[in-house]
Amino acid sequence: MKLTKEQSQEIKDQQSQKNQTKRVTALGLESILYDAIPALDHGFVRVVDYMGDDTSIVQSARVSYGKGTKQVSTDSGLIKYLMRHWHSTPFEMCEIKYHVKLPIFIARQWIRHRTANVNEYSARYSILDKEFYLPTAENLAAQSASNRQGRGDVVDGEQAKEVLELLKNDAERTYDNYELMLNERFDGTTIDESKKGLARELARMNLTLNTYTQWYWKTDLLNLMNFLRLRADSHAQYEIRVYADIMLDTVKKWVPITYDAFMDYRVGGTEISAKGKLIIKKLIRGEKVSLEDSGLSKREWNELMEAFDLKSMLI
Amino acid sequence: MKLTKEQSQEIKDQQSQKNQTKRVTALGLESILYDAIPALDHGFVRVVDYMGDDTSIVQSARVSYGKGTKQVSTDSGLIKYLMRHWHSTPFEMCEIKYHVKLPIFIARQWIRHRTANVNEYSARYSILDKEFYLPTAENLAAQSASNRQGRGDVVDGEQAKEVLELLKNDAERTYDNYELMLNERFDGTTIDESKKGLARELARMNLTLNTYTQWYWKTDLLNLMNFLRLRADSHAQYEIRVYADIMLDTVKKWVPITYDAFMDYRVGGTEISAKGKLIIKKLIRGEKVSLEDSGLSKREWNELMEAFDLKSMLI
Amino acid sequence: MKLTKEQSQEIKDQQSQKNQTKRVTALGLESILYDAIPALDHGFVRVVDYMGDDTSIVQSARVSYGKGTKQVSTDSGLIKYLMRHWHSTPFEMCEIKYHVKLPIFIARQWIRHRTANVNEYSARYSILDKEFYLPTAENLAAQSASNRQGRGDVVDGEQAKEVLELLKNDAERTYDNYELMLNERFDGTTIDESKKGLARELARMNLTLNTYTQWYWKTDLLNLMNFLRLRADSHAQYEIRVYADIMLDTVKKWVPITYDAFMDYRVGGTEISAKGKLIIKKLIRGEKVSLEDSGLSKREWNELMEAFDLKSMLI
Amino acid sequence: MKLTKEQSQEIKDQQSQKNQTKRVTALGLESILYDAIPALDHGFVRVVDYMGDDTSIVQSARVSYGKGTKQVSTDSGLIKYLMRHWHSTPFEMCEIKYHVKLPIFIARQWIRHRTANVNEYSARYSILDKEFYLPTAENLAAQSASNRQGRGDVVDGEQAKEVLELLKNDAERTYDNYELMLNERFDGTTIDESKKGLARELARMNLTLNTYTQWYWKTDLLNLMNFLRLRADSHAQYEIRVYADIMLDTVKKWVPITYDAFMDYRVGGTEISAKGKLIIKKLIRGEKVSLEDSGLSKREWNELMEAFDLKSMLI
Repeated sequence: MKLTKEQSQEIKDQQSQKNQTKRVTALGLESILYDAIPALDHGFVRVVDYMGDDTSIVQSARVSYGKGTKQVSTDSGLIKYLMRHWHSTPFEMCEIKYHVKLPIFIARQWIRHRTANVNEYSARYSILDKEFYLPTAENLAAQSASNRQGRGDVVDGEQAKEVLELLKNDAERTYDNYELMLNERFDGTTIDESKKGLARELARMNLTLNTYTQWYWKTDLLNLMNFLRLRADSHAQYEIRVYADIMLDTVKKWVPITYDAFMDYRVGGTEISAKGKLIIKKLIRGEKVSLEDSGLSKREWNELMEAFDLKSMLI
Repeated sequence: MKLTKEQSQEIKDQQSQKNQTKRVTALGLESILYDAIPALDHGFVRVVDYMGDDTSIVQSARVSYGKGTKQVSTDSGLIKYLMRHWHSTPFEMCEIKYHVKLPIFIARQWIRHRTANVNEYSARYSILDKEFYLPTAENLAAQSASNRQGRGDVVDGEQAKEVLELLKNDAERTYDNYELMLNERFDGTTIDESKKGLARELARMNLTLNTYTQWYWKTDLLNLMNFLRLRADSHAQYEIRVYADIMLDTVKKWVPITYDAFMDYRVGGTEISAKGKLIIKKLIRGEKVSLEDSGLSKREWNELMEAFDLKSMLI
Repeated sequence: MKLTKEQSQEIKDQQSQKNQTKRVTALGLESILYDAIPALDHGFVRVVDYMGDDTSIVQSARVSYGKGTKQVSTDSGLIKYLMRHWHSTPFEMCEIKYHVKLPIFIARQWIRHRTANVNEYSARYSILDKEFYLPTAENLAAQSASNRQGRGDVVDGEQAKEVLELLKNDAERTYDNYELMLNERFDGTTIDESKKGLARELARMNLTLNTYTQWYWKTDLLNLMNFLRLRADSHAQYEIRVYADIMLDTVKKWVPITYDAFMDYRVGGTEISAKGKLIIKKLIRGEKVSLEDSGLSKREWNELMEAFDLKSMLI
Repeated sequence: MKLTKEQSQEIKDQQSQKNQTKRVTALGLESILYDAIPALDHGFVRVVDYMGDDTSIVQSARVSYGKGTKQVSTDSGLIKYLMRHWHSTPFEMCEIKYHVKLPIFIARQWIRHRTANVNEYSARYSILDKEFYLPTAENLAAQSASNRQGRGDVVDGEQAKEVLELLKNDAERTYDNYELMLNERFDGTTIDESKKGLARELARMNLTLNTYTQWYWKTDLLNLMNFLRLRADSHAQYEIRVYADIMLDTVKKWVPITYDAFMDYRVGGTEISAKGKLIIKKLIRGEKVSLEDSGLSKREWNELMEAFDLKSMLI
């Protein structure tokens, strides 16, 4: 990730602010505020604003007149209780705003989370940066035959080189032609004074989906956790997981008590169906269980056994 | 509005905070942060947190790396432009949180604005305060015969006294019986040690709709303006307008440039239908217009004429 | 629940419709369409419209050109898979609309589910029916000392009679005074020609929270399941559970495959935290577990043991 | 737009359904249900389901027991009243579902309308069709210098040819390389048995933004009108306007009374700011007005004069 001098200076200017406020502040988050944390080859995540901290959750759950805090231990107990019993509204009382730079194909996954506020850089009116995502050789992966949703055998060696070459060449050429159609280079200079330029809103259609875009994205803590639960999960696409992992770390800095409860009850937790519960009960009692009697599909059975490290029960 | 000593102290404690932050601050809003601004006879509005200011709108509209501000004049122009052309997402980048005490029948109107986060004081688990809204004599109003939605001839004199007496007595008696059923007074003391108390979730059903409740209510600036546009309007019920007017003033303190644009384009603005526009064009050209040729209903006609102070054209 | 002759006739008229459509239809739901299914003493639930059925979920998950259905077995497998892995959007493709009559204090809980469309009968412009909810003697329950959220020892015998008497008298008197202030009876007749009436928007504040209101409520299947998961749960207040149970039955008639998956994975399922999972793993392996080593609170420990019927492990 | 034989057959099968229902039906919409209405070069819009009609709006606004309809004239008056006074919830009581095929860069604009349900064809798990949008020569337009948001001087003649050639070649080459990386052709056949294929979730990043995608998109009538108001507007990008215009026509077939009100009050209507209103009032009275005294910017002034056909007043 490279920032222009001007961009770096703007960030520094923001970070040099020393404003006084009566609002609660989250020291951990203040320490990284405005930082451009690198993601993938050209992307970043920046926390640019926030509202509230752990005590705000407690405060609103109690509808209290003052601060939420009584004692850390009480607060922690309440937050854990709220998380365990799926209380949602107190976690909506904290809000965070990110500035994110990301490839378009990832932006298209991300935007499906609707309960958020977004302002995206407009390729209708502006020229997109000449930056596109190229996976590392290690990350190129062949789609597995058994699971079309993940990545199986690694595409490596000569084939990996070829793929990377194709991606790079196609992105560069389509970008060059984008400039050609605009009759304008990414830095704003005109290419051929004697020619007209195509409308930006049209020319952009020539860009590939790994081109980087950027946006301001603001959401509340509840919806952020919903996002992270899905996108920091091992089944999520690697490229969005990189962003989710960075954001997970910002949650830890912002609301450490909530973070712990989230990791315990959501990220590290497991759901068991009514049928699955019957199996687990039998296993605890030392009784025999079998796929046939379980009412589970083979796939469900294996998911259940894996969740409880029962490797020998896999079918 | 009366606060207990403990509540007043909690508010003072909050206001004495002097935290340092790198976030933008809104000085106007800081000056009234946590204040309990009285509303109706026992209610209040308190701003308890906020995110962003006018520059945040500009910053996100530009998807910039640094602060939004270039110059006040440029910012102002951009904000006016965004407001005029119904751009919505940049205004969602500011967030505010209120603590509000209000009568239940007003809370029921308010909650219909869905794009907000709410934590209400729970009468399922807690005892509601012994406070109910009683209109002033001036505010008692007879429902007008012509317009069942507003208030017409004033119910005054002896009748007003009677109405107020009824409201007061009924609220007090139902509250007394609420305590009786709970076997507990509002201050937590038990009434009759030899008796059981009814579940709070049930006893509350005996309370009248003018009983006060309270909540934390958080929303973004766009949805706040949508709320205020409807609820600070002269057609809104008086009791909710009292709250909306107070909140309108907090918007002025928070984002003064946006406030001006909002007052000009939304609150003070007018919408004209396609048919209405034809009438206005004719009027400008000095041509004759008539209800018959207009395609408007009588009601629409009058609304149009009133909007442009054409009293002599009313039918 | 009593309907006027006119209301009954209107319902019959709707049910006698035999319209032809190319849309998918759900026969089970058609058979009860428009029925007023009684709830509590004066309330009801009516399904008044719907969109889609089980095949619509499959169709949209596949983004297919034709119907979703291939075979029931394939469809069922896909729906179970989607439910198990928390896919949300395909379930949003079915929509249902209810007409519900319910006490105001229950309406206030219900409305907190924001992702729904609502039109409520307006007490600002119309007179509310003279109907209020009175619990049965069996349902009056004393709030338990240990758990302030549920109902403990039953308030019975003489005390139950007293409570019911209080509720009845207060509701009747406040309603009578509501009419008096309006100077109008619930059937529209004027009480005293020589007097003015108070505005309806004001008079309503004298009503108690067990007064019945009614609304049209429309939502998609995903959000309906979120609602039912919380409100048909044993921790939900009895009065809203009555409605949720009726609606659960309409889901069964509408989308039977989805209903089964919902009951298995959501309603009958269990969530286990990361710490709880460690305990269960040990129990399956026959190892010793103890509260001290678990990292769980006593409350969490007991919730876990109860979930797996380990009564002897309760502390 | 070309459909495969199989797709055409699936659509015919849907259209041959003759289901009986007690629900209200919209005859106009039934007549085009499931039709693939062509949009741009390879896209389409299909109405695949709907709920309610004009009477449903009236029914819910009245919270009635039976059908909404009294008489067409009364219904029409009520719907116009609701539209004029920005009542929103009754229009949310109708729901519609579309199946749409559209270029990705248009899908990215579209998806910003958040209050809708969407299932998109997944390029993570499936191969996208070999179809990309190419504008017609007439539609290629140079971005105007004065207004960077629209299209100005037409890029025509030789330059148009060149642009179209570039767009076509780049889309074809990147698609060919997409297949090469997948080691699979769009019809599912393997390219080189001796090679592995790259994961689909990765290979897709090589596609250009004019590649077609498709989705099921479902929304209520209120949010559909919000969408159409912005996207059928002359300021909207041509390519999304093509879709909006088609959908506007489906609204006319579905809810003709609402459609008329929408065209009169929203699409054909105008908003005037408080300052603008002062100018119009003066013009009606025949008084002099000037930019200097108006408090308007030059741009606002001209927008106002244009709205009222006052060409001679343009500055």
